[in-house]
Amino acid sequence: MDQETYRLLEDFMLCSMEDAAHDKEHIYRVLYNALEIAKTESKVNYDVLIAACLLHDIGRKEQFEDPALCHAMVGGEKAYQFLLAHGFEPGYAEQVKQCIQTHRYRKNNPPQSLEAKILFDADKLDVTGAIGMARTLLYKGTVSEPLYSVLPDGTVSSGENDTKPSFFQEYKHKLENVYLKFYTEKATAIARARQSAAVEFYDRLYQEVTSSYQNGADELDRLLER
Amino acid sequence: MDQETYRLLEDFMLCSMEDAAHDKEHIYRVLYNALEIAKTESKVNYDVLIAACLLHDIGRKEQFEDPALCHAMVGGEKAYQFLLAHGFEPGYAEQVKQCIQTHRYRKNNPPQSLEAKILFDADKLDVTGAIGMARTLLYKGTVSEPLYSVLPDGTVSSGENDTKPSFFQEYKHKLENVYLKFYTEKATAIARARQSAAVEFYDRLYQEVTSSYQNGADELDRLLER
Repeated sequence: MDQETYRLLEDFMLCSMEDAAHDKEHIYRVLYNALEIAKTESKVNYDVLIAACLLHDIGRKEQFEDPALCHAMVGGEKAYQFLLAHGFEPGYAEQVKQCIQTHRYRKNNPPQSLEAKILFDADKLDVTGAIGMARTLLYKGTVSEPLYSVLPDGTVSSGENDTKPSFFQEYKHKLENVYLKFYTEKATAIARARQSAAVEFYDRLYQEVTSSYQNGADELDRLLER
Repeated sequence: MDQETYRLLEDFMLCSMEDAAHDKEHIYRVLYNALEIAKTESKVNYDVLIAACLLHDIGRKEQFEDPALCHAMVGGEKAYQFLLAHGFEPGYAEQVKQCIQTHRYRKNNPPQSLEAKILFDADKLDVTGAIGMARTLLYKGTVSEPLYSVLPDGTVSSGENDTKPSFFQEYKHKLENVYLKFYTEKATAIARARQSAAVEFYDRLYQEVTSSYQNGADELDRLLER
């Protein structure tokens, strides 16, 4: 890819960014992760991969405004139209669109091409380790969801059986299980190296809050019954 | 304190809560931390302490709407007026007000009474360890601030010399230094036991993002120069 094409795509990405968890630095991390993964694969089409990475989240704004929309489907179509309007070949625009439309984890719509699998893995890496925890917390703050739920007996829920959204619920239902779902060996290795950062952070956080509630709630009961 | 008084104060607190980092669970953690600290101190006035804990952040909404206001000063005054209006003694209302007005870290306004010192420490404990990192991230999401800043040379800033707000900047300027500022021995001990969770999380996060930028940015330069 030439510098001029890169700047064109980058500028289109920059004017489409939304919240702090999906800001432009997320896009650069995904692009950099993808290039790192691509080094270990052969016959990668970098023109497709770089464009797909830069534009993979440009449908977020539409999904944020209407949650019935899927940002991957919207973003893929937006990227396709943008590329056609700027004189790129329909075949190329279609390849980029396919990558973007399959980057979200959906059982019935898995990535097919090598570039689509690399984008998928590169994006999922940003949900692993400490960065995955940090981004999820930023996002929970953005949408005003709490750290955890408190059970009817006054103890802190681990998140495992929760239906109400919270950081612990997201960790137990999604973040904890992301490590087995990569397509490339390189992404699997990076994710495994990061896993303990997430596990340890959750464990420490759970331990800190549960010990506060256990000790404090008993003491409060005792004081109020005096 | 009797159950009825506790419910009256708790209800007033519940209708004054704001963002996910300063939600009602923060209040309960501070209350429980305070009771844990109080067990190791003698002659604690629990009626003052419990009221001050429950009401210490009721001025947040006013500060959020007008950042020139200090939530501690506003909250102390609101608590004082609320207690007087509900028939409590002016001397008692004044003690609660003093605790609330000195709970924020300000060099020229340190906590004086034992209850004020316990509230101060209990509130600061919620900025330590994994819970401190998690709450700060939630707050950064709420106010749309990023995880880190990128330096002009394209590398990720550690936060140390940053003036632009970010999670790394807040960690280096505030969270990292909170561990030496407690009044009670018990809070100092709890904070120390939590410290490694914060240090390790920052280190892992910094390592994950810097390695992405280092490897990826070099590879991108190489590809765009082809």
